[in-house]
Amino acid sequence: MSTRTSRGRRPGAPDTRAQVLDAARASFAEKGFRATTIRAVASTAGVDPALVHHYFGTKDNLFLAALEMPVDPRELLAPVVQMGPDGAGERLLRTFLSVWDDPDIQVRLLAVVRSVLDEDGGQLLKEGFIPVVVGPVLARLVADEPDVRIPLVVSQVLGLIVARYVLALPPMAVMPAEDLVARMGPVIQHYLTGDLAAGVVRPV
Amino acid sequence: MSTRTSRGRRPGAPDTRAQVLDAARASFAEKGFRATTIRAVASTAGVDPALVHHYFGTKDNLFLAALEMPVDPRELLAPVVQMGPDGAGERLLRTFLSVWDDPDIQVRLLAVVRSVLDEDGGQLLKEGFIPVVVGPVLARLVADEPDVRIPLVVSQVLGLIVARYVLALPPMAVMPAEDLVARMGPVIQHYLTGDLAAGVVRPV
Repeated sequence: MSTRTSRGRRPGAPDTRAQVLDAARASFAEKGFRATTIRAVASTAGVDPALVHHYFGTKDNLFLAALEMPVDPRELLAPVVQMGPDGAGERLLRTFLSVWDDPDIQVRLLAVVRSVLDEDGGQLLKEGFIPVVVGPVLARLVADEPDVRIPLVVSQVLGLIVARYVLALPPMAVMPAEDLVARMGPVIQHYLTGDLAAGVVRPV
Repeated sequence: MSTRTSRGRRPGAPDTRAQVLDAARASFAEKGFRATTIRAVASTAGVDPALVHHYFGTKDNLFLAALEMPVDPRELLAPVVQMGPDGAGERLLRTFLSVWDDPDIQVRLLAVVRSVLDEDGGQLLKEGFIPVVVGPVLARLVADEPDVRIPLVVSQVLGLIVARYVLALPPMAVMPAEDLVARMGPVIQHYLTGDLAAGVVRPV
């Protein structure tokens, strides 16, 4: 927030950019991701749709900017996906923790999480963030049944966020990242590629 | 809330009971579970400590009453614990879902969850609910390292609560309870008794 108000992107532009983001945020929250159009956001902000495209590119990008995510999960997770499903559980978790454990980023991500955990924000996560941002990434890592496996992964990661960052439960809050990767990575891997139908999880 | 105000426990008593609960809630939220004493709560409420004991019994029970939990997790989980660690992951989850999937109870549990997810409430979960109520139950089911295993179980259950009930993520929100038990039960079991050090989770 302070960066946006304290230094303009280009002369005269910051207000316009902020107006577009305000309009986008209101529309995503009220109508949801799918029903929001760049044209309508531009109209609410009183600017030309071409300007919105110029600033933000696609609707996905506008959505991420409206959420004020300090990082782009798609870029972060690209290398994890490139290496394929083997060991992806641990790599996903390690990448996730490297971002969340950064104090400056954590503060901003926590603000996002607190806002999506309230009634209105939930829709942004459900209709936007998970299907548009996280879903396509995870879909390239799951063995099958993406509609079941992705929510299972999401549920464990949400629980990790709540336990380690929102509530700061000991010892979860202070456990070294690699200890968590070793303990929770195999579970993420199981949800991604394990035999869910077998219904039994066993160490080798 | 409505039950408490619409029918008194005994003539003249409802106000006193509500005053004690208000004082308890304020103290648990402000000082935490450990630093709260029945004597201080009674003093704040302007009643005799013996009356607080009479109404609520122990500090643990006063805490649960202050959280306005519609069910007592200790009673619910007693049969799960009695049957021992084998299959406890699925039994825990089945019991958990049978309570949470009841619409009347769910509405009240969601109110509790939303209140603990905010800044003040987190302390109640961290210092009170988990160590006092859930911890001792799970401690009887874990193979070893309770300080690591219990938080891992808690993290997955918190994620399930957020995904299925708070955000109502599809298909998590509508998946039949037994499907969830089959998919997530083995993970809870792994956290309770699996070989965490092996770092690999495999179906049989």
